[in-house]
Amino acid sequence: MSGQKKDQPNGRIFYAQSGGVTAVINATAAGVIEAAAAQGVQVLAGRNGILGALREELYETWAATPQQIAALRHRPGGVFGSCRHKLSDPAAQRDEYQRLFEVFAAHDVRWFLYNGGNDSQDTANKVAAFARDSGYRLGCLGVPKTVDNDLCGTDCCPGFGSAAKYVAVSTREAALDVASMAETSTRVFILEVMGRHAGWLAAAGALAARAPGDAPHLLLLPEVPFRQQAFLQRVEQEVQRNGHAVVVASEGVRGEDGALLAEGGARDSFGHAQLGGVAALLAQMTTQAGFKTHWAVADYLQRSARHLASATDLEQAYSVGVTAVRWALEGQSGVMPGIRRLADDPYRWDLVPVPLEEVANREKGLPQEYIREDGWGVTEACLRYLAPLIEGEAPPPYERGLPQLLDPELRLREQQLPAWKGA
Amino acid sequence: MSGQKKDQPNGRIFYAQSGGVTAVINATAAGVIEAAAAQGVQVLAGRNGILGALREELYETWAATPQQIAALRHRPGGVFGSCRHKLSDPAAQRDEYQRLFEVFAAHDVRWFLYNGGNDSQDTANKVAAFARDSGYRLGCLGVPKTVDNDLCGTDCCPGFGSAAKYVAVSTREAALDVASMAETSTRVFILEVMGRHAGWLAAAGALAARAPGDAPHLLLLPEVPFRQQAFLQRVEQEVQRNGHAVVVASEGVRGEDGALLAEGGARDSFGHAQLGGVAALLAQMTTQAGFKTHWAVADYLQRSARHLASATDLEQAYSVGVTAVRWALEGQSGVMPGIRRLADDPYRWDLVPVPLEEVANREKGLPQEYIREDGWGVTEACLRYLAPLIEGEAPPPYERGLPQLLDPELRLREQQLPAWKGA
Repeated sequence: MSGQKKDQPNGRIFYAQSGGVTAVINATAAGVIEAAAAQGVQVLAGRNGILGALREELYETWAATPQQIAALRHRPGGVFGSCRHKLSDPAAQRDEYQRLFEVFAAHDVRWFLYNGGNDSQDTANKVAAFARDSGYRLGCLGVPKTVDNDLCGTDCCPGFGSAAKYVAVSTREAALDVASMAETSTRVFILEVMGRHAGWLAAAGALAARAPGDAPHLLLLPEVPFRQQAFLQRVEQEVQRNGHAVVVASEGVRGEDGALLAEGGARDSFGHAQLGGVAALLAQMTTQAGFKTHWAVADYLQRSARHLASATDLEQAYSVGVTAVRWALEGQSGVMPGIRRLADDPYRWDLVPVPLEEVANREKGLPQEYIREDGWGVTEACLRYLAPLIEGEAPPPYERGLPQLLDPELRLREQQLPAWKGA
Repeated sequence: MSGQKKDQPNGRIFYAQSGGVTAVINATAAGVIEAAAAQGVQVLAGRNGILGALREELYETWAATPQQIAALRHRPGGVFGSCRHKLSDPAAQRDEYQRLFEVFAAHDVRWFLYNGGNDSQDTANKVAAFARDSGYRLGCLGVPKTVDNDLCGTDCCPGFGSAAKYVAVSTREAALDVASMAETSTRVFILEVMGRHAGWLAAAGALAARAPGDAPHLLLLPEVPFRQQAFLQRVEQEVQRNGHAVVVASEGVRGEDGALLAEGGARDSFGHAQLGGVAALLAQMTTQAGFKTHWAVADYLQRSARHLASATDLEQAYSVGVTAVRWALEGQSGVMPGIRRLADDPYRWDLVPVPLEEVANREKGLPQEYIREDGWGVTEACLRYLAPLIEGEAPPPYERGLPQLLDPELRLREQQLPAWKGA
């Protein structure tokens, strides 16, 4: 993986990770780097996403050994660092784009691969447009990733299957705990999961149930307006029926007025409301209704639980990286490898190029036909959709009781331009 | 496992699960039932702990197939149901004890095995004393279990190692996530773990670190009084040093006045402090100090995570069950199999009988020599103690992406006494 081969395509690939990371995003990185190496192409990885390009902080991924690159399959988090930095509109603000292309030119970057969610596909799309306008030859591809599963143009998103498996397994395990305590102690258990706008991860909790009466008994989805009285009535019914009630709640649950139940006021740098308080709020309601309640907030645990990754998800994460490189080197641009489902059971899928503008800045919530009519759960169609995504186990190697960490050598490339003042 | 053998010891074993359950408590049940079956002795399991004996709700464990009993090794929660019911003092209140012994006599119970924490060892001890006083031949043994690791008389407690492994693995995984986001987003991550009085589980978080600067950067232990200013200063230092800070906090963290930190916040409808609010409270502090913060509350997930059980813990959980039966049938009474550590590395241990009065109603916190002098972490001695307890993986069998559940047939024994009015 050292020098460039003689018959290599000209130029380097820039690859970066963006937005919230996942348990398998580094498997995508491994796919990109290994596929590029097989073609004799070098990959420069941005330190902290697009910021790495702006600041000319570029990792020479060929400094890492092939073993280290292969081990990225097992490492959660974003090994090169991620960021929440959204490029401005090029019509309004050209500075950032000009800088990007100066950096790309200085390091002979001819392909731009951006691994992220809908904000990131928007970034890739803007970079592609700027390249076209400026006449700089740059193949721009989006590479999908998000635990929220809310990207358009792809049947599912790498990262989601593993988080979904974490939610389903955790729901099942915790439900067995609650069931054994319910007679004299905890009656209600609430698990808060991610999903600001889309209930995919809460829906995944439903996979824990395999027989009538099995937990989870209630799902709270952002797509279904929350009504406190109805909620407490259902909790009471479920406790009467099963002795206990297990609730999986999206962080993004909203009231009938459309306001976030947990709206706290804190916002992230994109202006998104910062969530994380739904479980405590619901627990307060059920406690006041007389049910001893326990609650958990999975937060980052659900999106970093590489120890419980779905083998299906891992394979898809790796494949989108490999395929993005192949398509880039073949000359495609302005597209993202989207996962196309060919069959539910046995599950079959392939990858198809999806135009970035169909993905950028759009969100795919749970479709109506996936939400049960009463709003407290999901339909059989939804379960058929979800089931294959958590299939298969892919445990990391362990060392002295913990997942082994074999991090790649991260060598920054020598800078050739003056420091960037912007970000 | 059907009838009694000809040369069998006379009588049946009563076994019950008590208090908070664990990921491996059913492995202890499997040990009890399999060891008893090997001696031709039948085991009656109490439904919901000691309540099952009082109510004459007794499961005939021989109704389950050997495969079902073996599969208990993989099932978290308490398969027979647990309870939080403490027997009153026999000197003050004899009714419950008399009822217990009527039930035992009606079903020829000659051994009482109670699987629980310090309250439960107290129960076993009281039952043993009552048996001696009343002249009813009953061998009483405690069987240790608690994720809190706070039992006296045993080097560690079955259930703890698996919860500790969960905390260590989750800390490591989430820390990799935070590290990749810290540049433009989350700077501080707080994981709240169990431990009302003892910091064992928070201490286990320290196993996640294997190099200087590795997370977790701060532990908040119930044994160390919390001072807000000092905490915020340390968070700031860690963020400056590492770009981010990972905190593992016991639910039982107390202020300098000795009051639970979480008591300031949520109270239930009876005015009782609701534990489980430390992470949110700490997050509020760090957010106000200017650090974007994420937090997770592991709650029941940490004690039911059978998918991540420690093989060492699983083996110990099974062994205390087997050994309790062996000792019971040999005529021992008033003792609990305690784990005795023979060597740290390679780890060696055996089981020794510990008098119940040395265990009952006492709690073992982190010893002073395990707490780092500055109070924000644990010592090398503590890590040497903890390390072997999370060693080894013992994944359950999976089926369609989820841990397989093969629950035993739970057949209640026909009742022979009038209903119990008491509980």
